[in-house]
Amino acid sequence: MKKQKIINIGLAGYGTVGRGVMSLLLSRNDDLSVRAGAKLRVKRICDTTFKNKSSIKALSPAIKGLLKKNKNYRALLPEAKVYTPNIEDIFSDPEIDIFVELIGGYQPAKRLILLALERGMDVVTANKNVLAKDFNELLAAAAKNKRRIYFEASVGAGIPIIAAINEGFCANKIYGLAGILNGTTNYILSNMSEGKADFDESLKKAQGLGFAEADPTLDITGQDSASKLAILSSLIFKSHIKPEDIYVEGIEKVLPFDIALGKEFGYTMKLFTLMEKVKPIPGSADMSEGAAFQVVPAFIKSSHPLASVSGAFNAIYIKSDAAGEQMLYGPGAGSLPAASAVVSDIVYSARHIMEKSVRHMPFFELRNKAPRIVDARNVESCFYIRFTAEDRPGVLARIADILSNYGISVASVVQKDGFSPKAVPIVMLTHEASTGNIINALSEIDSLNMVKKKTVFYRLLDI
Amino acid sequence: MKKQKIINIGLAGYGTVGRGVMSLLLSRNDDLSVRAGAKLRVKRICDTTFKNKSSIKALSPAIKGLLKKNKNYRALLPEAKVYTPNIEDIFSDPEIDIFVELIGGYQPAKRLILLALERGMDVVTANKNVLAKDFNELLAAAAKNKRRIYFEASVGAGIPIIAAINEGFCANKIYGLAGILNGTTNYILSNMSEGKADFDESLKKAQGLGFAEADPTLDITGQDSASKLAILSSLIFKSHIKPEDIYVEGIEKVLPFDIALGKEFGYTMKLFTLMEKVKPIPGSADMSEGAAFQVVPAFIKSSHPLASVSGAFNAIYIKSDAAGEQMLYGPGAGSLPAASAVVSDIVYSARHIMEKSVRHMPFFELRNKAPRIVDARNVESCFYIRFTAEDRPGVLARIADILSNYGISVASVVQKDGFSPKAVPIVMLTHEASTGNIINALSEIDSLNMVKKKTVFYRLLDI
Repeated sequence: MKKQKIINIGLAGYGTVGRGVMSLLLSRNDDLSVRAGAKLRVKRICDTTFKNKSSIKALSPAIKGLLKKNKNYRALLPEAKVYTPNIEDIFSDPEIDIFVELIGGYQPAKRLILLALERGMDVVTANKNVLAKDFNELLAAAAKNKRRIYFEASVGAGIPIIAAINEGFCANKIYGLAGILNGTTNYILSNMSEGKADFDESLKKAQGLGFAEADPTLDITGQDSASKLAILSSLIFKSHIKPEDIYVEGIEKVLPFDIALGKEFGYTMKLFTLMEKVKPIPGSADMSEGAAFQVVPAFIKSSHPLASVSGAFNAIYIKSDAAGEQMLYGPGAGSLPAASAVVSDIVYSARHIMEKSVRHMPFFELRNKAPRIVDARNVESCFYIRFTAEDRPGVLARIADILSNYGISVASVVQKDGFSPKAVPIVMLTHEASTGNIINALSEIDSLNMVKKKTVFYRLLDI
Repeated sequence: MKKQKIINIGLAGYGTVGRGVMSLLLSRNDDLSVRAGAKLRVKRICDTTFKNKSSIKALSPAIKGLLKKNKNYRALLPEAKVYTPNIEDIFSDPEIDIFVELIGGYQPAKRLILLALERGMDVVTANKNVLAKDFNELLAAAAKNKRRIYFEASVGAGIPIIAAINEGFCANKIYGLAGILNGTTNYILSNMSEGKADFDESLKKAQGLGFAEADPTLDITGQDSASKLAILSSLIFKSHIKPEDIYVEGIEKVLPFDIALGKEFGYTMKLFTLMEKVKPIPGSADMSEGAAFQVVPAFIKSSHPLASVSGAFNAIYIKSDAAGEQMLYGPGAGSLPAASAVVSDIVYSARHIMEKSVRHMPFFELRNKAPRIVDARNVESCFYIRFTAEDRPGVLARIADILSNYGISVASVVQKDGFSPKAVPIVMLTHEASTGNIINALSEIDSLNMVKKKTVFYRLLDI
């Protein structure tokens, strides 16, 4: 029998995803090696906690169980030497082909990714922060070093969305994307929608169940979703879309009351990450096609497939000109879902190494000029607007009058029982209007004496 | 500037999908060529209608428009020579690298696919019939000739489900699949569900809108779905699952009445293609893991993402042990959706040819032994059962008694207004029971005098 070639892997960051990766690589080694065309072997695992010898001993029982059960795994993972607290043990080893970065955060992860490319290693990473901020720099470094960088796990965990955009839909122009890309906020909104729990109670429940971090700021403010939108948009536009190109709003201020009212109208609230191509306004100086990028809580028809994405699930809905409307759905986080994507990238990388592929990233080059970034205020949409106003004649007429002055036409109105005896909620669904006009009209309306609270508005997505 | 390499394509079958492929290859040639690493050029298009010269003149206005607009396209498609009625003009041309088979049907398509592989061409095909019947033969022929066969368009048109199973989820064991894989039947069921139209009216509407063929037999009897399930299952099991391994039922007998009743219980009816792994019964002679394959109309909770797959859309829901529950959704048919998949396969093939890849199909080998095929009757499920019985005391007790003798326990019962004065519909939702026990119990119940019509039952899928 011909001796099988070996692809050596160096893994940095041995937390929940790292352990998931090891358990898949060990338990499915034969099958994965056939797919890769080479034996996949983890030669080094680096984690700073390994300075403490007892942390090595306390390694995941799942992996130790595997090692005990099958001595073939032992050959793949020589216990004595594989664990190290020193990253140089990976970078100084000329045998290592693939560097798997699962440290997370910005630095030192970015520095290590660049170093690995310089040392001639392919890189597999789940790091949304580094990619969102420095997409162009990472891809340029990969190209310069004739290496590849894979990042399927950076968005939507095990959902194969990077491959879908990059390969499956390669013949398409993608002109719209609506994503539910953060499991924590989706869990909180689902919980607020099902029961009558408010934001704080739902957040606590999510933390109790492990769906939300102790510090959930990046999730609930929409920053995490924005990083993921930056990555997907950079792939779509073949040009780096940066987090600062994205208008971001979180779900901190969402009330169960509005979720329930929206439901009565047949709508479901989600935190959406949106990419929308926008046609230039006739007569503008810049007539190039533009795009608006935003993360906002918004309503969608309850019959739409995105409305049934509940709990900690994620989904990406894509509007493309050939394949049409496509959606991918799956768990948005978790050890094994993320590991599933990391391992598919490892197999992909190994296969390219075995085939001596020269492309720096299959199917992809950053080579377009940046699209014209359109202010999210210029996007046209229907809206849900809730006023809190005095319950007396003339109020509705005054509000409708101001809306009309801004060219906003109302599709339906409902007045509900009040929070307090003196103020009632009035809900209006509008026809299409620009977000900017809505903001201006509501600012004028909110300055009226008869309006008792700041008016709340959400987009009604028509996708 | 270095001269760019050319990948030559020979396309057979110039119907709706073929024209879609040409329009994408022409209008996006630059971008696709960058992704492929070589200029993609259609050297020959073969269709038997080209015997008649006027049919060449009548070619798609879209393509003629493109040719007029941009003379670069003219270079890609030399009008005089490209169209031919003779398939030998493709097979005798040593320059042709990729054979694109879009003829459909069984023969001569199968013969031509095998011939192309023998002549050293890669094959891209959308042909579900040949693949479902002869999956193993086609893959063996590709391996023998060190060529590849790509078939993303054979299931779910532009939905990248083949790549997802084969690459994105390669680290997973997939233990369940529930697909809505036929747009015609899904359109008919959606239409029956929304209005009160019956099967015949809905079929006519689907035909009028072009969602159903003049002869819709293969669609409505479930055979088309079965072919697609055979292909996906063969990928999952790495062993040829044949159409005859699949239990198939169509939607011809579905009544709007049952759809509406199911809706009241919070369920939506779809024609499902199901793959379910089944644990061996303790003490059986064959203790290997088995799987049941079926195409059946069944109910699913209306809150489930699969329930919102309406109209001519398709979806594939996958249960996997690492990535968890994943769903891909998109249009199930159409010129451009199918062409999107064909063109992504062409790019994939071109890239592999350029890289001199030796694998006969990336990431995949048919190398497992066939799973133990479990009779669909042995699958356990909850059920919706509708009896039509006399409206008099004792009827319900008698029915419940017989069900109980077969170990079937009832979760809820509703008696509705009758079709006729003498018979009322009684709907029961059961707890888990085997399909075989349900069939036996209903056969006994239907023989009672008090039961006036054949009892109807559907699975309530718990996925």
